[in-house]
Amino acid sequence: MPITAPGATSGAHVRTPWNERFAQRTARMTSSMIRELLKLTEQPDVISFAGGLPAPEVFPYAEIEATTRRVLREHGRIALQYAATEGYLPLRELLVQQMGRYGIRVKPANVMITSGSQQGLDLIGKLFVNPGDRILTEAPTYLGALQAWSAYQAEYLTVPIDDEGLDVDRLEGQLRAGPKFLYILPNFQNPAGVTLSHARRRRLIELANHYGTPIVEDDPYGRLRYEGAHIPPLVKIDAEYHECADGEHEFTGNVIYLSTLSKTLAPGLRVAWVVAPESVITRLVQMKQGSDLHTATLCQVLAHEVSKDGFLDRHVRRIREVYGERRNAMLEAMRRHFPECVRWTKPEGGLFLWVTLPEGVDSGLLLREALAREKVAFVPGASFFPGGGGERTCRLNFSYCDPERIEEGVRRLGRVIARAISAC
Amino acid sequence: MPITAPGATSGAHVRTPWNERFAQRTARMTSSMIRELLKLTEQPDVISFAGGLPAPEVFPYAEIEATTRRVLREHGRIALQYAATEGYLPLRELLVQQMGRYGIRVKPANVMITSGSQQGLDLIGKLFVNPGDRILTEAPTYLGALQAWSAYQAEYLTVPIDDEGLDVDRLEGQLRAGPKFLYILPNFQNPAGVTLSHARRRRLIELANHYGTPIVEDDPYGRLRYEGAHIPPLVKIDAEYHECADGEHEFTGNVIYLSTLSKTLAPGLRVAWVVAPESVITRLVQMKQGSDLHTATLCQVLAHEVSKDGFLDRHVRRIREVYGERRNAMLEAMRRHFPECVRWTKPEGGLFLWVTLPEGVDSGLLLREALAREKVAFVPGASFFPGGGGERTCRLNFSYCDPERIEEGVRRLGRVIARAISAC
Repeated sequence: MPITAPGATSGAHVRTPWNERFAQRTARMTSSMIRELLKLTEQPDVISFAGGLPAPEVFPYAEIEATTRRVLREHGRIALQYAATEGYLPLRELLVQQMGRYGIRVKPANVMITSGSQQGLDLIGKLFVNPGDRILTEAPTYLGALQAWSAYQAEYLTVPIDDEGLDVDRLEGQLRAGPKFLYILPNFQNPAGVTLSHARRRRLIELANHYGTPIVEDDPYGRLRYEGAHIPPLVKIDAEYHECADGEHEFTGNVIYLSTLSKTLAPGLRVAWVVAPESVITRLVQMKQGSDLHTATLCQVLAHEVSKDGFLDRHVRRIREVYGERRNAMLEAMRRHFPECVRWTKPEGGLFLWVTLPEGVDSGLLLREALAREKVAFVPGASFFPGGGGERTCRLNFSYCDPERIEEGVRRLGRVIARAISAC
Repeated sequence: MPITAPGATSGAHVRTPWNERFAQRTARMTSSMIRELLKLTEQPDVISFAGGLPAPEVFPYAEIEATTRRVLREHGRIALQYAATEGYLPLRELLVQQMGRYGIRVKPANVMITSGSQQGLDLIGKLFVNPGDRILTEAPTYLGALQAWSAYQAEYLTVPIDDEGLDVDRLEGQLRAGPKFLYILPNFQNPAGVTLSHARRRRLIELANHYGTPIVEDDPYGRLRYEGAHIPPLVKIDAEYHECADGEHEFTGNVIYLSTLSKTLAPGLRVAWVVAPESVITRLVQMKQGSDLHTATLCQVLAHEVSKDGFLDRHVRRIREVYGERRNAMLEAMRRHFPECVRWTKPEGGLFLWVTLPEGVDSGLLLREALAREKVAFVPGASFFPGGGGERTCRLNFSYCDPERIEEGVRRLGRVIARAISAC
């Protein structure tokens, strides 16, 4: 077959052939509404409760600067070089030790470092999700998980939540439908801010084991508790459930556990981790090799050096103080400025609370009004429901704005809501 | 259905249900042989030509330390915070400007930052590869690309290479078979070290455009040339091919181009980039959102601050000097110590050269002997051939060991090879 000479197409606008070649799996993928919104709300005159950003005032700048200096002088050859896919061993050892305080008894071989918890979710999808597999989630649930798994053509089953978290009385029917796994955020859930009670956690572990449904426990905010007593994570309750009479402690449970340093140290480092049985970690490491070889070594070594010797614990106490105050500011402002028929959750920790508007008010339309008339932003709740619904709900972040901006933003939002209600 | 009480399974060794739930796509995935080998060759008494590591002696420790200090003081609120998925704009602008020198004329909207080029390969797989899609590669080719795309159940078509790179005379038949895209490393190819000649690049672009086959051009080593003249990248030749008579410069070509700072600055930062038409970047950004939200902000801001104002150019000159000397040391040692019937490539740049052993010598068996008897390591070539073959070939890295260790390692390897030949 003769080849057309270069000149032959000259002058014609040649379109790229890439656009006709997208994989089928991408057909339904759209850009995250939250991230698109974040772009709209970046103007300084908008008070935004939309993002999920930690407060930059509490980042440990001086500590990270001093530590980076030490890291480059003492560990530079490691910190700038390629590294093992599973992650920097001293960091994995430190995480094992810190998780031990919460009763999570694992070895470094059970821990893989990921580039943010988002990567943990992605790799779980890559390793476990066949097209059409159904994943059981809370409704509402974390949008990033849906985004990660929809890329592998997952479908979703859901269980509703209330003020005590996932409604375990409605769980059994969905477990019978045979989901691939259950995904849950037991502590100060994103988006709703609710916490799964201890009694429900026990019941959930019993049910999941009875039906042989494994669990992905996502715990980004566990250490950010502002009131109430610590509740053991599912991974601990499940390990007790499986514990052998002869005292064997090999971690072989039903739960894959995810956590992160993004909320306690700094999200810009992208250092998080996943805990799983060793046979699963081995396969997750293979998936990660193909995905990005390893997480930035500089960030891992830095995270280890900053976190050891008690600094992270002191720093978490400071974050708790600041965010706890902001949560209180938002709750008080809502009591003062929101119409009586509006309801909201009272989170014991985390970054978010959840607002339910009266019948007839659509939170998507409300956002448009809020941005246009009052320059205040939040995330409409509907996008957090994989099966639809939630049109009357909103997610509000309370970690990013200081108490004065929170007061002003809630006042503005109260006016928009009142107007929307009176228009119903 | 009644739920078994927790006590009922106590004493039994409960196996994790995760192990029975791996996705079909993972069935054929095995751990990278190179990375497993790296673990075996980490003992200090082994001279390893197996890895693809940059030399830690040339990492710019002082520069990175001073810059990190400035980054945290002047840009700390950005560097430690969440960031836009597409990457830090000043870094993308700098890359656009630097690529301009090589005739690659694009806008920041054509550039997305990735967590190493490995992530670029992964996201291309995620966006384009349906199960069973055939990707056309050189034989041999980069193992990490095979690992990335096999996770999306790609199949492979191959074209052999010779001393001038991919054999374009044998390309057309494979293009007629309708591959999803062609993957190629034109400069100092990994693993073979060969460079695609200018004439072949033109012919390849003509053929690919004629058959409508898009190209993924992977260029991690382009700036590490130790002799010979620069050859324009495929992305530039393709853009000229598509250029409109009316002078329109919108980047709509046939080529997705990948490059990285891993080989010129430091791999531990995991900062690389992908260049593509804007409509493709938009979709790649969606894929990356689900994969890891964004590349570590600290590393991106640091990479920008270190690279601007000419430091990267000065540093690349220094790396070229050191690696060029090591390449010469390896080539000279091979002339002295290798039996006459052994052949090898003479790379004009990059990190690797390629050895072909005489008939009857298997490089996999040779590696076992080399490690056991002489404590010297390389990578057997067979793993770089997606369609099989290459049993007589080896990849040797010359960037990591200093000239003395290169001399000693090649001497040892020469002894092992001579013994293997005499045993034939």
